Formats: sequence, structure tokens, C-alpha cells
Amino acid sequence: MPEPSEFSPLTVNRLSVYLRCLERLRAQGVERISSQELGRRFGLSPALFRKDLAQFGVSGIRGVGYEVDCLADGLARRLGLDRPSRMVILGAGNLGRALARYFADDSTFHAVALVDVDPKKVGNRIGGTVVEPLERLGEIVERRRVEIGVLTVPAAAAQESYDRLIEAGVGAVLNFAPRQLRSRPDVPTKNVDLRVFFEELGFYLRGG
Amino acid sequence: MPEPSEFSPLTVNRLSVYLRCLERLRAQGVERISSQELGRRFGLSPALFRKDLAQFGVSGIRGVGYEVDCLADGLARRLGLDRPSRMVILGAGNLGRALARYFADDSTFHAVALVDVDPKKVGNRIGGTVVEPLERLGEIVERRRVEIGVLTVPAAAAQESYDRLIEAGVGAVLNFAPRQLRSRPDVPTKNVDLRVFFEELGFYLRGG
Repeated sequence: MPEPSEFSPLTVNRLSVYLRCLERLRAQGVERISSQELGRRFGLSPALFRKDLAQFGVSGIRGVGYEVDCLADGLARRLGLDRPSRMVILGAGNLGRALARYFADDSTFHAVALVDVDPKKVGNRIGGTVVEPLERLGEIVERRRVEIGVLTVPAAAAQESYDRLIEAGVGAVLNFAPRQLRSRPDVPTKNVDLRVFFEELGFYLRGG
Repeated sequence: MPEPSEFSPLTVNRLSVYLRCLERLRAQGVERISSQELGRRFGLSPALFRKDLAQFGVSGIRGVGYEVDCLADGLARRLGLDRPSRMVILGAGNLGRALARYFADDSTFHAVALVDVDPKKVGNRIGGTVVEPLERLGEIVERRRVEIGVLTVPAAAAQESYDRLIEAGVGAVLNFAPRQLRSRPDVPTKNVDLRVFFEELGFYLRGG
């Protein structure tokens, strides 16, 4: 089996999509499904589905298809969803607060802390979470066994905040700040600039 | 020049990244840059940059490079950023409220309304925006000349909400609900499931 780093983010993101589809099938009581039927129901490519799964050593049985339960559990495990990931959110602006509320009680990605550099925000209650000062970041990551850092700071603060997260010892970073980071090769780092999705629509709607 | 629909989302998303880089160069007073230098400064592939721009009929001058100002303006125009896009956000949960606050005063993507089906949410003030009832969606889109609909509803409500947006007359939809939509081929629709990014990190961090 190849190392995780040998799979492209696009392939990994498709696993998430497949998992969503399989969970819907499971909820509907479907026990087995062929790649053709899955493709038809969810508008996916059966060939790509088979190829993606084959990379992980999983293949359907001819004339029977894939076991929904077993495949869903396997994908969840590969995506690290079989046990909770603890996260700290750095930046208590609109997006940081929204994510803190959304993931406060999440059983898979659990936001255990929301941190900000602004003394006026520290102490504010966001849902069940209280904003904590940046100085405590190292202690938070260590004592609460945080694995993932989420950056929701302004662009100008992104690199410094990233460096603080790495120093504090997180194992992976999801960066929502619109700035390319000089990131550590040994720390999985994902940049998600939400404006890019709006701009993509702008392009197809009236640009090009 | 090819039609917008002939460009892949990945290519279009790279235009956004290039634009961010060019805007930083412009702010620094850089007037011209070669693809090599741009690649070096921002960690991008010079060859892919040249190839992407060439698709739009833009090429640098040998030994001189690209004019930063001119290229940034051209990319902004292609991404539809040269005039404001008016948006309605459907779903006043955590993410919808965060986006409404974030885009309330945005000069490019301007959130003109936040709509929800829940009578308990209708009338609530979110930043400068008041939550309006779903029944008014058609009137809002028409009178306020809304072009883009943003879906931040639960997965189970996504398809019906999408259909309402289309019926109301929006020209494009950005869907944050974790559900693949049966979308209209003539309406640019982008699905963004934020959990997918967290799951990607989960894969590289400890899955695979």
C-alpha cells in the first residue's frame, strides 16, 4: 500500500464524497451496490470510483458490487474518522466563531479551544467555548492533546500564526487565511481560501 | 478564445491564486515580474503559470516578464471582480451568519440578504442584515438584482433550497450543504463541503 502522501488531495477528497454517498445508502438500508448503480444514483463516474478504490486495494465482486457497510467503515478509517480529532481554532473573527460553534460538539472533529490575540475578544463566550489568549496556545495544544490547528486569522497574520501553531506542536493545519504559507513539509497543511469559490462562480457567470 | 465553460475549475482557481500574488506584488510597488521570479517568490510552477495565462491569450515579454498592473486587472476582470456581484444567503445557521457578516460590506461579493425558513430566526439582526423569510426569496432576488445564491442549509434541505433559488432566478449557486445536488446545467453551481478539507487532513495525518 502506498504512503498517504502519495495520494493526491483530489483523490482523497473523492473518498469523502464516496463516503457521503455510502452513508446515504446505508441509511436507506442498501447493503450492496455496483459502481454503475452508485454512479447513476449520485452522478459519479463508475470507472473513476473503481480506480480510486483499487488504489487502496479494494475491489467489488463481479455481479455483486461493493458491501456498503464494510466499504463505508473502511473509507471512514482511512480518512481518520474512526476516532475524534481535537482541534484548536486560531482567530475569533466571523469564520473562527462559526467553526467553533459548528465543531464544539462534533464527535469527529472536536474544537476544544478558540484562541485570539485581541484582549478585547479574550474571555468572550462563543457557544460553549471561551476565547483564550494566544500566549496559552502551547499549553492548550499540549494539555488538551490538540492534533489539528485551524487558522482563521487575517492574511497579514497568517504566517506568524502558522509558525506559532507548529511551535505549539500541532500535527496538521487547515488555513482559511487567504495567504500562501511557507509550510513545514512534514506537517500536512491545507490552504482553503473561501473567496476562490466565489471567484470561480464569477468566472463562469460572466467572466472568462 | 474558448468559452468559460471550457476551462476547468482547477484552472480558474489558479487564476485566483495568481491574482492574490500579483496584488501583493502591486502593493510592494513591483511593476514587472518574470514567471520564474513569481514562481520562486510564491512557490508556484512557472511553467504552469505561463501555460494557464497562454490559454487566455496572455504571454509575458521575453527578458521582461509580465506587467503586474495590467495582468492583475485582466485576471480580476475574467473572474468577474470588476463590478460587484449581489448575493443572497439561504440558511441563517452558523456558517450563513458568518458569511452574511463577512460579505455585508464587501465591495465585490456583496451579501444583500440572509433568508431562513425558521420563523424564530426571521427578524434577527446579523451584523447589519435582518433575516428574511423564505417566502420573500423571489421578490428579494428580483428587486435587489441578486446574481448568486449561497446555500448554507442542512443537507436534507439542500435540494429543495437549490430549486427555490433557481426558481427565484439566481444565475449561479455556491452550495456549502454536504449534499450533491441535481443542478441545472445552465446555472454554474459549485459544491463546497467544508468537512472534506478536515477529512483530507485526517487522511494525511493518520489515515491512508
